[in-house]
Amino acid sequence: MVGKMQQQFNAQDISSMDAPYRALFINSLGGFKSANLVGTKDQDSESNVAIMSSVVHIGANPPLLAIVIRPDGGHRHTLKNILQYQCFTLNHINEEILFSAHQTAARYADDVSEFAAVGLTHLWQDGFDAPFVAESSIRMGLEFRQHIPLDINGTHFVIGEIVNVSVPKAAIQTDGAVMIEHANSVALAGLDAYHSTQLLGRMAYPKTALKPDWLKS
Amino acid sequence: MVGKMQQQFNAQDISSMDAPYRALFINSLGGFKSANLVGTKDQDSESNVAIMSSVVHIGANPPLLAIVIRPDGGHRHTLKNILQYQCFTLNHINEEILFSAHQTAARYADDVSEFAAVGLTHLWQDGFDAPFVAESSIRMGLEFRQHIPLDINGTHFVIGEIVNVSVPKAAIQTDGAVMIEHANSVALAGLDAYHSTQLLGRMAYPKTALKPDWLKS
Repeated sequence: MVGKMQQQFNAQDISSMDAPYRALFINSLGGFKSANLVGTKDQDSESNVAIMSSVVHIGANPPLLAIVIRPDGGHRHTLKNILQYQCFTLNHINEEILFSAHQTAARYADDVSEFAAVGLTHLWQDGFDAPFVAESSIRMGLEFRQHIPLDINGTHFVIGEIVNVSVPKAAIQTDGAVMIEHANSVALAGLDAYHSTQLLGRMAYPKTALKPDWLKS
Repeated sequence: MVGKMQQQFNAQDISSMDAPYRALFINSLGGFKSANLVGTKDQDSESNVAIMSSVVHIGANPPLLAIVIRPDGGHRHTLKNILQYQCFTLNHINEEILFSAHQTAARYADDVSEFAAVGLTHLWQDGFDAPFVAESSIRMGLEFRQHIPLDINGTHFVIGEIVNVSVPKAAIQTDGAVMIEHANSVALAGLDAYHSTQLLGRMAYPKTALKPDWLKS
């Protein structure tokens, strides 16, 4: 717990920050992020993998996730590969592969598979044109659905539909919830601060518009 | 840690799940999510607040975040309010306000402010047409920048630019990173599983394409 003293920043304060400072600061503000690896196949049928912290849930029916791709660094080829093969994988980063996963953000030479470079194992599934990460215990294959270039800053919003999923059987609850903590999935803060988690509790579905009992009195 | 046995699901398995089961299952797959409250002002100048787990980082310069709005339940008015007043706030959910925050997802009557209904305190800032949540120690004001309807499932992607930020001074590191864990911000898994976090470590910027020393041998 931190002290109560708050520090305020306005738009001018933010725009006058040094770029690396601002990157760390702004990336921290949204809250905890997921930490995934995106797997794609490139034109030479090599396997590519890069870290992805911008996965966002779009809907459950159809089952849609989206990613925000900044086409530089570790993601120079991700978008092109997805558009060419119309699919990609998402694989949860767990504590065991944290170092390798983070290192995929480095800029490797074009003919290098990041899998080999960082020590991860690609896993191909018949009929699916993107590699999974064998070390991830929660992994899914997505078919490409929509590409929205975000002209506001040159990034790309890519929507995919989940068409196959592999999760630890023991992590699936009877109501369908997957306890991702049990698979050692990590939570990311900012650009580089990885966290383990501890379940505080599951909340009941907020069904009623009435003031709940625990708030009365 | 769970056992090694994996369970596989294909597209058919997913589409044949009962809707509530699928909602919990699919919402779990992306990984840990941020947990925020979105504050808006409605046409009667009432304050509105609703839980938001779909915040995604778009870029640091300009400082952009986006949210995915499903226009039902707790978010019936959020989109309309943002488009009318061209701004909104995002406020981290911490352990102390977890119950209240989750309850904002209920469907309250139109003339009810969710702030009062769930026991949260709105905080207005001169010149900014959206309420902050006083109980959040990390809160920010955003100006509306872009609205992209996602026809694929009827949700809405809304991009805002961060124009003011309030964070605990003690949580800001010398390099700009904000240790959101120190503000008791929670991480969300699926629809309803809230987690506290513990820092595993911060990783160095992956500068080199060379195999790092710790991977050699």
